[in-house]
Amino acid sequence: MLTQQDYAGIVESEIRRLQLPAAPAGLYEPIRYALDCGGKRLRPVLTLAACDAFGADCERALNQAVGVEMFHNFTLLHDDVMDKADMRRGRPTVHVEWDERTAILSGDAMLTLSQHIASQGCSPEQLPRIMELYNRTAMQVYEGQQYDMDFESRHDVSVEEYMEMIRLKTSVLLGCACEAGAIMAGAGQGACKALYDFGVALGLAFQLQDDYLDTYGDPMVFGKEIGGDIANDKKTWFNIIASSEDLTGVMKAEMSHPSEPAVKFERVKAVYDALDLPARCHELIDRYIQQAIDCLDEAELIPAAKNFFVELALKSSTRKY
Amino acid sequence: MLTQQDYAGIVESEIRRLQLPAAPAGLYEPIRYALDCGGKRLRPVLTLAACDAFGADCERALNQAVGVEMFHNFTLLHDDVMDKADMRRGRPTVHVEWDERTAILSGDAMLTLSQHIASQGCSPEQLPRIMELYNRTAMQVYEGQQYDMDFESRHDVSVEEYMEMIRLKTSVLLGCACEAGAIMAGAGQGACKALYDFGVALGLAFQLQDDYLDTYGDPMVFGKEIGGDIANDKKTWFNIIASSEDLTGVMKAEMSHPSEPAVKFERVKAVYDALDLPARCHELIDRYIQQAIDCLDEAELIPAAKNFFVELALKSSTRKY
Repeated sequence: MLTQQDYAGIVESEIRRLQLPAAPAGLYEPIRYALDCGGKRLRPVLTLAACDAFGADCERALNQAVGVEMFHNFTLLHDDVMDKADMRRGRPTVHVEWDERTAILSGDAMLTLSQHIASQGCSPEQLPRIMELYNRTAMQVYEGQQYDMDFESRHDVSVEEYMEMIRLKTSVLLGCACEAGAIMAGAGQGACKALYDFGVALGLAFQLQDDYLDTYGDPMVFGKEIGGDIANDKKTWFNIIASSEDLTGVMKAEMSHPSEPAVKFERVKAVYDALDLPARCHELIDRYIQQAIDCLDEAELIPAAKNFFVELALKSSTRKY
Repeated sequence: MLTQQDYAGIVESEIRRLQLPAAPAGLYEPIRYALDCGGKRLRPVLTLAACDAFGADCERALNQAVGVEMFHNFTLLHDDVMDKADMRRGRPTVHVEWDERTAILSGDAMLTLSQHIASQGCSPEQLPRIMELYNRTAMQVYEGQQYDMDFESRHDVSVEEYMEMIRLKTSVLLGCACEAGAIMAGAGQGACKALYDFGVALGLAFQLQDDYLDTYGDPMVFGKEIGGDIANDKKTWFNIIASSEDLTGVMKAEMSHPSEPAVKFERVKAVYDALDLPARCHELIDRYIQQAIDCLDEAELIPAAKNFFVELALKSSTRKY
């Protein structure tokens, strides 16, 4: 097993090596821009590590790793258009840097490219499994995004519905990333399933930590502004629990007649604190991390591989960025 | 061989039978709406007929036929968002009936579904070929759409560039539809290539006839309003030729200081007529139709199959709708 940084480096240089045509520039330049985003490359790292974990050279899963990262960056690109988000990782989004129709078309091309790349290097036995996994996952991601948008106009979203939404929108792609690596390594069905379940549980913990950081993160470390979720009354785990448990009336008041942003942020955060939500959220995160780790046992990994994934899971749940 | 209507009927009922989940409705209802468009189903008809032409039951290529039609309807959906088109085939477009982000997300889902459906029922030998064909074609369609958008702000588009644009945006998908049927029938490489070339040449003729009908069609028969291309100074074959050959100054004047729409339409049409463009366009169409028919000889089809495609090609070039 290599380190997380090593795997990320392999993905990064493979993405840099991608041969995209020069013309039409309006189609391909935004794709390069979107891919050159300096993200954590968590998903392709999972793919490479999963392949390694079953004793195959991680390069065997390199196309599938890049495919999953391309898909992820496509969803970010289109989500930013749908959410009218102007900035992403400190840079203007594609629809701001170019325009909206460019963002739509380049995103479409990224989706097709992700499919194309992920289908490369598969054996005849692997190809239908990889395609089925990628397409099923993609549909779930869209369903998650749709539920997320539906939630904006609803005031009765339950925690269960929220968890199902983030499972679809975020977690299954981490599961897919893990399973793709296992498939490419030739792992058995049971091991593939266990790695998938690991990724999904990890994804739930990851998204809850993201929700936590949006209110409690240090913007200098987190790398993005905090407070966006509170400002937009976004239905997060914190918002949903606080809305149902808050007896002070602050949540309701700030929803219907918001104070100016900084005051609203402090007032809502005080409700979260009073309800002990940071600690309760981390209890839940820990539970998902434990669930993820349990899946690793089922996959019967060698100790070095298990250590890698356990460490990655623990780091995700305590990350500050 | 069945008739074009029979093949269209088979596609239509297969599309009606498609099992899409009920929830989230915001994702799946627009897909049903977009598919239920009453189009000619030309592309999937080509797929089924091509499969039949090589002696295989056309049902063997049914998934690939539906996949290509799903892809086509996805491109229309996203193109309408990009072009801000309000109506399509007499109905409000998806982004008007719902909203823009719904149109983007449902389109993404249609693209993934098209991939998923097209990959069903392939043998291990066919699957990589079908995937490669679909993904390559999709990328070319995006390139064509990008060039089409680029042309809007250019005043030096040549006829060659225009023909290359419609080859990418429209024709290669007809080629793909034909080749997919041939692949599913187990036809040899040479025959597959010949059928692809037939589809591409047919597509060029088809698009030129579309350009012709946008100015010369009978709106009651054509099924859509005419004159849109002239109103928007769209770079069509007619606009490009007329702009370069017109010595009366009408083209330039109507571009910079347009008359009111009905007058502009008549003045520009008069330029087209004076330059004999309708007849010249049909000469070109006939040349592409002949080219398409020549490809059929290379494919060495049985007479019934050849007749089917020749008839379809001749009908396309003289169609009024």
